[in-house]
Formats: sequence, structure tokens, C-alpha cells
Amino acid sequence: GDWGCPEQGCPVDVLRTKRLITAIKTPYLTSGKVDLYAYDALVEAQIEGGVEGLIVGGTTGEGQLMSWDEHVMLIAHTAQKYGDRVLVIGNTGSNSTREAVHATSQGFAVGMDASLQINPYYGKTSRRGLIEHFGAVMDLGPAIVYNVPARTSQDIAPEVMFELAKHKNFAGVKECEGNVRIKGYTDKGVTCWTGNDDEVHEARYEAGAVGVISVTSNLVPELMRELLFDGPNPELRDRLLPLMGWLFREPNPIGVNTATAMLGVAKPVFRLPYVPYAADLRAEGAALLRDVGVANAQPLADDDFTLLREW
Amino acid sequence: GDWGCPEQGCPVDVLRTKRLITAIKTPYLTSGKVDLYAYDALVEAQIEGGVEGLIVGGTTGEGQLMSWDEHVMLIAHTAQKYGDRVLVIGNTGSNSTREAVHATSQGFAVGMDASLQINPYYGKTSRRGLIEHFGAVMDLGPAIVYNVPARTSQDIAPEVMFELAKHKNFAGVKECEGNVRIKGYTDKGVTCWTGNDDEVHEARYEAGAVGVISVTSNLVPELMRELLFDGPNPELRDRLLPLMGWLFREPNPIGVNTATAMLGVAKPVFRLPYVPYAADLRAEGAALLRDVGVANAQPLADDDFTLLREW
Amino acid sequence: GDWGCPEQGCPVDVLRTKRLITAIKTPYLTSGKVDLYAYDALVEAQIEGGVEGLIVGGTTGEGQLMSWDEHVMLIAHTAQKYGDRVLVIGNTGSNSTREAVHATSQGFAVGMDASLQINPYYGKTSRRGLIEHFGAVMDLGPAIVYNVPARTSQDIAPEVMFELAKHKNFAGVKECEGNVRIKGYTDKGVTCWTGNDDEVHEARYEAGAVGVISVTSNLVPELMRELLFDGPNPELRDRLLPLMGWLFREPNPIGVNTATAMLGVAKPVFRLPYVPYAADLRAEGAALLRDVGVANAQPLADDDFTLLREW
Amino acid sequence: GDWGCPEQGCPVDVLRTKRLITAIKTPYLTSGKVDLYAYDALVEAQIEGGVEGLIVGGTTGEGQLMSWDEHVMLIAHTAQKYGDRVLVIGNTGSNSTREAVHATSQGFAVGMDASLQINPYYGKTSRRGLIEHFGAVMDLGPAIVYNVPARTSQDIAPEVMFELAKHKNFAGVKECEGNVRIKGYTDKGVTCWTGNDDEVHEARYEAGAVGVISVTSNLVPELMRELLFDGPNPELRDRLLPLMGWLFREPNPIGVNTATAMLGVAKPVFRLPYVPYAADLRAEGAALLRDVGVANAQPLADDDFTLLREW
Repeated sequence: GDWGCPEQGCPVDVLRTKRLITAIKTPYLTSGKVDLYAYDALVEAQIEGGVEGLIVGGTTGEGQLMSWDEHVMLIAHTAQKYGDRVLVIGNTGSNSTREAVHATSQGFAVGMDASLQINPYYGKTSRRGLIEHFGAVMDLGPAIVYNVPARTSQDIAPEVMFELAKHKNFAGVKECEGNVRIKGYTDKGVTCWTGNDDEVHEARYEAGAVGVISVTSNLVPELMRELLFDGPNPELRDRLLPLMGWLFREPNPIGVNTATAMLGVAKPVFRLPYVPYAADLRAEGAALLRDVGVANAQPLADDDFTLLREW
Repeated sequence: GDWGCPEQGCPVDVLRTKRLITAIKTPYLTSGKVDLYAYDALVEAQIEGGVEGLIVGGTTGEGQLMSWDEHVMLIAHTAQKYGDRVLVIGNTGSNSTREAVHATSQGFAVGMDASLQINPYYGKTSRRGLIEHFGAVMDLGPAIVYNVPARTSQDIAPEVMFELAKHKNFAGVKECEGNVRIKGYTDKGVTCWTGNDDEVHEARYEAGAVGVISVTSNLVPELMRELLFDGPNPELRDRLLPLMGWLFREPNPIGVNTATAMLGVAKPVFRLPYVPYAADLRAEGAALLRDVGVANAQPLADDDFTLLREW
Repeated sequence: GDWGCPEQGCPVDVLRTKRLITAIKTPYLTSGKVDLYAYDALVEAQIEGGVEGLIVGGTTGEGQLMSWDEHVMLIAHTAQKYGDRVLVIGNTGSNSTREAVHATSQGFAVGMDASLQINPYYGKTSRRGLIEHFGAVMDLGPAIVYNVPARTSQDIAPEVMFELAKHKNFAGVKECEGNVRIKGYTDKGVTCWTGNDDEVHEARYEAGAVGVISVTSNLVPELMRELLFDGPNPELRDRLLPLMGWLFREPNPIGVNTATAMLGVAKPVFRLPYVPYAADLRAEGAALLRDVGVANAQPLADDDFTLLREW
Repeated sequence: GDWGCPEQGCPVDVLRTKRLITAIKTPYLTSGKVDLYAYDALVEAQIEGGVEGLIVGGTTGEGQLMSWDEHVMLIAHTAQKYGDRVLVIGNTGSNSTREAVHATSQGFAVGMDASLQINPYYGKTSRRGLIEHFGAVMDLGPAIVYNVPARTSQDIAPEVMFELAKHKNFAGVKECEGNVRIKGYTDKGVTCWTGNDDEVHEARYEAGAVGVISVTSNLVPELMRELLFDGPNPELRDRLLPLMGWLFREPNPIGVNTATAMLGVAKPVFRLPYVPYAADLRAEGAALLRDVGVANAQPLADDDFTLLREW
């Protein structure tokens, strides 16, 4: 087509080797704008902790609350500054094909390595519509297809996924439907990352997943690195599970937003519709973080938090 | 708050009397831009057919594929030209509170009577987040709250809805969870419209719903008017059910898009990720339309359709 | 072309009869958003004062500081609420043909009567480029062409203007190059409005202009009405000239912004790069307003004003 | 202020050493989107030709015809790919302080070295407004202030410029008012680049300018390098003057757009309001290019060119 961009990310084979990818949290200033100082500190900590890739503006990073220019700015910033040390994967999908094409084109133009592509949530479409939609965006560069029916209300069925997998730019699947589904893919040579932190141990060591696109690694990258790279470790898994459970008591990213505020990694600023966990859950989270060796969480008071209707 | 707009729509009591509201289809030019000639003809036919309100840029009208300025333009156009003959309800909700506040503010400023407000699909949020989100947008003017878990992946539970119902600008619920849920609301004085055309007869005559926000009425407004206003009529219901079923064989608005193209009401132009029904389904639809008295549907050939990645 | 909009404003013959058109000031809330309460009060006062048309988002109304969606919202709001009492002319020109086409299309779709079209300021273009640019926007509906070399750095020469005047949607010229230029046009049947308040008396009674697109009428609509409608009146002209001079001591709309703040017509809120007149000029303005019968101007203190970098 | 970006470009001292900066042309695809293949080839040729800095999206690069997200994308693309070989200066100024602040913030976040800041053209403002406007954007990082009254209709007077020069992020002036003005600045230690190619020889060797921000260097970077670096060379100057004159027969960038199309450096695609030089001027340009050693210019036929109203 008429898309003149020489940048098309990294080879899919390189993508397929990455075990630990963080869906990175976006920290905000009190104005609601992106706090790039805090963001950079978080990225540095991720890289030092052994994280190999970042999803920029994922659901965790609240891409759904960004304007596209802000979203692409953050991808560009990350690629420009950290692109030689970590894979930069932009969550440039959308339920509008036009928006997905536009954002994905821009993402590659500014140096991202790959895109994460969701199926059209909320609006949904037919099987043929899915094929057309993913085809349009995969034509632009390497893509990880993201299946999360608990958000999109529409499962990408395996038959559709195998059809998508024929595209030269298809790198693999971020799959949230569980390890049986993942095993069905990996048995046929389709690369998978689980999107469920609490299932990562089995995904990696039993279902053939290459790794995880993780929320938890925002908080404990080294432990997630160990879990993914150093062989089966049920003890470590069990040690992490309570924290993982806490992170998903309410829809993500509420948990990780609350935790990063308590840790001082991000200011206690929330863009609505997200609001922090209540005081009792915060106290519980501070204790769980201590249990895994993160000692400095402050439960904070309710009025420490800023909730924003506009930003 | 600091929102200086004297226009805040029509009184909620007026909204609550409207039985037949159409989620109106948006027709396109071959360029993908809105075809306002076709749109106006469709609106005129709706008003003549007895429709009392329009949802502009609903899921059916593909608000999810519009830029906000296009969406607000269409609300303004409708209010300006037809606001004295039909209620104009803008689907100005969003999963981003900022976008919902911005679009709803603009919608009221340009003359809409009320807004339709969805809960944050895809991104989702907590119970308290829902309260904050809906509070932000209901502060701006009359609103119908829209619950469609099969799209949003998150049910608005009755306990949340009753909380929302306390707001002075809460007009009622567009509910897709069925007539038992609706009965539970109407028994307690909460106005309901069903969002399911195939359940409208029971919703209206057994579950206490005031009426419907309908897709089918795009095609047969007079018959929907009769069904809603002239008392129980199981025969008419049964006559319409096959067409209603056909409209939802694939995710709406694929069916109504295909039907309006076949009827010449709209050009056969689809914004992706929507694609038309296949030829066999089209032939079936043409027959079903004839069965309810709409004789002029043309099945069209596959290459009559234009599919757009950009517009 | 492929622009499907049945609304194309009012007949050019109607436009050509309007003598008193106000380039209306846009008032702001402390947040920097448009204060529609104050705007509506100002519009009401204009209509009551005998103003026949409004330029919405002109240079005076700071269209240059609006996002296009805000600009079109304000046009739509005005057309929806006052379109039956006053002509609504949207300043939907731009130095980008794309932006001018987009905004002008939307303006007509939401009910404006005509557009005001500037030549491409700053970027400038060739004679043929001017013809192409104005042709693109005049194709969409009635237009007044605006020549103000002291802002655009490029005079629209008469030979170009006469070329533009052949278009069926050309209504006339807002001309700031003075009454000799205007006389040259009106002698050949081209309708003119002067854009210079201080030259309006001669423009109207000697140079054949139909009237004025005025800044001063924001403050004293009745006097401007009298000046335009009741025959030559050098005494009234001379009474108004000091105020007119004061309004243009610094680039418009700084003067009218300061005056409306002093009169309480708008909050003392400025979007940068505009800042209010200094205290001595404010005191002088309050006195000049009293001299023409507007008694309630308050000079205000420097810290009564809010200057905004973002809004 | 509340702007959390650790990137603030390169030191002003580094900027002040750069003699040859190109206001780079933006090439387009037939669709009107940016042709990044052609752009990259052009940038490579610039760097090889000895150019030390690029103005991205300047008037020459048609920033005035870009959406801001496209503009920032192009800055990010350039910084990401060429930032280690050439200084990247984003033309992120605007006549709206909000837009200038937003674009400049984003530009630094994505890696630009400095911004080019224009005074508010068209809307204009007062002396104090200029101070506030430039202060807002210079707070964000290193800036070159751009004075071009023939476009902006408002000269930045030396007294204002000296006031601006006190800011720590003020790098210098791109001055189009001529070499006397430049001499007045450089005598007082203010770094200057001339914006007039035809005056560069005297600017550099007599008026103390460090160099030029050039249009001509898009076509003949090596010759401009020689002119700037190898000492006074009236012969070379005189050899280049006819081409320089040709480039400005109509408002820039019409000439350079026509030339790059004739050379095959860019497709013959124009975004309106720009249209190519007529056939006779094209023939003359091809000859002038040959005279300076560029042999491959094709005059092209009128219908080789595509003119776009939308893109």
C-alpha cells in the first residue's frame, strides 16, 4: 500500500526469544500529564532487573486514557532513549482499524520494535472482519496479537489465530485464555506469552509459552526474571502468588497504580475512571510487598491521592 | 465545576416518556466520510415512521469509528435540523472519563437533549471508579446509562445502578441483560429501555420497560411503532423475530449495515473492521425484508462493497 | 466532489444586505474553556443592539487559539441557539487547505450561514495557489473573502479578487486595505465590508461598502447600528473614534479583551499570547467608555487577570 | 512548572557552533502522507553533504500543513534515526502559546536537540505578550528565535530580542531582516543565523553570523558547505545566486518543492495551498540547476503533478 516507512521494527525471530516483557505503568504528574522523570526511573529499574521488553501504553499503562499523540510520544521517547537496551513494543491497536493503522504506522516511524494488536473490543466484528483488521495492521510491521476476552468480550478463536499466524509479521500471541489454549498453540509452533501473571509458571514450564507479558514485573522485575529464566521453582511461584492475587482484586491497573503510588515510584495521581484501592486493601498490599522483599511501601491516606477528570 | 454551559438538554421526565428510540445507522460516502444526504433521508424516514428519539453515534451508528469532532458534528447537525421533531441523544460516553466529559460537554453545548453513557469497556474499573465516572458525566446533563456486558465485559450491577439513579440527571437505563433485570428496575421506579430488539415485546408489556433503543427500527420504524404503542401483539412480534435474528447473526452493526446497503438507504461502504454479510446471508436478508413488507432489497455482489482502512 | 452535505448556508444575496456584523469576542472561564454563559449574554446583547451577523472564532474571537473541535462547537452552539435571529458566519479559513476544507465542511453541516475565508497567512502561496485554495473552500458554501495584509503578509490583489468573485458562492470581501480599494470593488459590483472600524463611516457613505465587520460593536452595538443605518453622522463618528483608536493600540483582540473584562462582560482571563493592556491604558479605556455612555467599566488591578499557557 | 521531562536537548553552546542548517523539505506520497523513504534519502544526502543541523517541519518543510502528531512523529523519526549524526531542531512554535508549549514539550520528549520558535504570526500580540509567549516555550529547552516579518507581519524588535536573549535556553536568532540587523546582534554577542540564502555570504563574512538556516542546501548541500566553511568566495556566491533567486520567485517552499520534484528527490505531490511553478519557470530552474552542477532535473509536464485538498 501507500505507506512509505522504511522502519518496520525488529525481526519476529528476535521478538520470539523474549521471556520477560513488562506492561509498563505510566506515571503521572499532578496535572495528569505523563511524568517522564518517574517513567525513566521505572524503565531503568526494569532494565536493571532483567526485563527484556516493554509494552508501552498497554492496558496497564493506560493507553485507553491517552490521546494518540501522547501515546506515540511515549513510544518515541522510549525507543529513542532505551531502544538499544530493551525491546519497545507499542500497544498501537484499537477497535477502529483507522486508528490502529495510524498509530501503528507512527509507532514504527518513531522506532518501536513491534506492536501489540488487540481485536476490536466493544464494537466487535465478524470473523472476516477480524482477518481484515489484523491484516491491515500486520502489513505495517511485526505484531503480537493480544487475546483477552475478559476485556474485549470477543474471543479470538484458534481457527482465526492460525489464520493470522500465516502473516510474515505475526510474531506470536499474548494469550489470557489459559494454559490449555496456550499449549494448543505452542504444540503447533505458535509463540505464546501468557497475559496472566498467576499462570506464568505453568505456562512457561508446562504449556510451552516463551514467557509472559507481566504486570507484576513492574514491582519485582528480578523475581519475575528468576521465575522465568532459572527453571521450575514452585516455591518462588507460591511466594509471589499472594501479591499477584492482590494486584487483580479490582480491574488492572488499579492494583499496580496503587502499589506504585505506595512505593513512591509514581505520584499518587489517578486518571479517572481509575481510583485507588481502599485503605484496608492498601495496608494488605504493603504487607504483601514486604513479604516478597519490597520493604518501603507506605499505605498512604485517602487524601494523598489526586483523582482527575481532565488532564 | 468549571463548566460554563447553559444548555443541559431536555427534562428527564420528558425523556422517560419516549418508547421508540432508534440507534441510528451512519451512512458513508465512498471516501468514508459521513453521507449527510443519506443520513438526512434516513432521519426523515424515522420521524415519519413514528420514531421519538435518536441515538447519534451509538454502537450501531459506529461512534467507535468516529473521531470526536466528527461525532459532535453529527450530533450538532441532528439537533440543529431535527431537534424540534425528535429527541437527540448523543452517545458521548467513553472508557476514558476525560473523553466522556469532553464529548458530553460539547454535545450539550450544540443542542443534544441527553447523553447515552456506557461504563468503561475494555479498560474497566472498580465499583467506586464507576460511581466517579458516571458522576462526572451526569453532572453535565441528562443521561441514560447503558449496560451491555456482552460488549463491555463488565456488568453494571443493580446495586451500582441504584446508586447512580439518585443523581438528578439520571433518566434511566438502556439494559441488555434481559427482562428479569429490567423488571427488577421498573418495580423500583427506574425507567428502562431494552437494548434487545427480540425481547422488546415482553420488556414493554410484561417487564415494565417504557420502550426500546432499537436497531431494527432503522429498517421498519412503522412496525416497531406499532409494536410499542398499540398494545400486546404476539403476531407482529413473531413476524418481526426472524428479521431481528438476522440482524444479529454477526456483531451489530454488520447486519444493519448490510441491510441498509441492500435497500439503497446507504451506499455499500464499510469502515473496517466491519465487513458485509456474505452473499448467502444477504440473500436470506432480502427475503426476510420482503416478508415484513420491505420489497426493494437487492442482495448486491461482493464487489459492490467498498471496505476502507482509512477515512 | 465527495462532500455529502445538504446544508450550504444562506443565499449570498441575503448575506450581501447585512450592514452590521460583529467579530464576536470569545469569553473564557478561569480554566480557559469557553464561558458559554457569558457568550450567550454577549450574543443576546448584540442581537438586541441591532447586530445582524456574527463572525464566530474570528481573529477577534481568537479562532487562532482554538482547537478545531472547539471552534466548530462554538459555531454549532451559535447556529443552534441564535440561527433564527442573526446570521452565523464561521471563521473556518486556515493557511492549510485541508484544515479550511475540513472546518468549513463541518461548519456548514452544523448550520452556519456562511464562512469567512482568509488567504494562507504565514505560509503564503502563489497566485495560482490562492485560486486553488479559495476554490476548494468556496465549493462548500457561501463565503466572504478576508483580506488583511497587516496580518497575513500577503495582499490579495484586486486581479485575484475579481477572479474569485466569479464563483457562485462568493458573497463579498472583508477588506482592510482601505476605502480606495473598497471603492474599486464596489464600483464593479463586488460587495464589501470594511474591517477597519475607524474607516467605517467613509466606507459606508462614500466608498459604497454595505457595512462593517466590527470589533467595536462588541462594546457599543447600538451606536454602531446608528452609525451604519441612520445616514451620515460625522458627529457620532467623531465621538466613537477615540474608543476605536484605543481598541487598536496593541494588536486586536487585546483591546476588546481588556474592555470586556473591565465591563464584566467576560471574566478577566486571557489565553496567551494575549495579555491585558497595562493599568494606565486600562484607566484611559474606562474613561473613553464612559464618554460614549458605557459607565460601568472597572480598571481592575493587575492581579485580577489570569494568564493561561494551557487550557 | 509541572512539566516532567528529563530531555532538554543539547547545550546552547553546541547549537551556536553550527554553520549549516537545512530547513528540510518534507516529501509526500501520492496519498499526501509523508514519504519517509524519500525523506530518509534526503537526510542521508544532507549529512553526506556536510549539513550539521536540520529544521524539521519548518516553513520550508510545511509544518503549517501538518497535524501536530505528524509533525512530532517526523521530529521523533529524525532524532531516533539521525540524532547522533546531525542536530535535530523541531519547528515547534505556533501563534498559539498552548500549541507551542505542547509541541515543544513533545519534541524534547522524543529527542530533539532544540526548537525553532516563531512569534505569533497572524494573531500577533503586544510586546509583553511576546515576552510571555517566548518565555513559556524557552522554559522547556534550548530555542532559536525566528524573526521573519515578511511572514508574521510583526517584527521582533531588537529591544525585545535582547530581553529574550537573557533566558538560559536562548541559543540565538534566525533573522530574516538583513545583515544590518544581524550585525547589531552579533556585535553584542547574540548568535545569528541568516534566514536569507542570498545574503549568507555577507552575513557570514561581514555581519558576524555563525551561518545560515538554508533552503538552497536541500539541493546543493556541498556547495553551501563550501560557501560557509571555506572562507569568503564571491565567485561561488555569484554562481549560486541565480538558483537562490529562482527558489524565491514565488513564496517558499514552492520553488524547492518544484525543484525536488524535478530532481526525483520527492514525488511530484503538492499539498494545497502550494502548487508547482509553471512550465516556463520549471524549464528555467532545470537550466539553473545544471549551471551549478546538478544535471538530472526533469522539467516534467503539468499533469505529472498531484495537488491535494486532503491528506
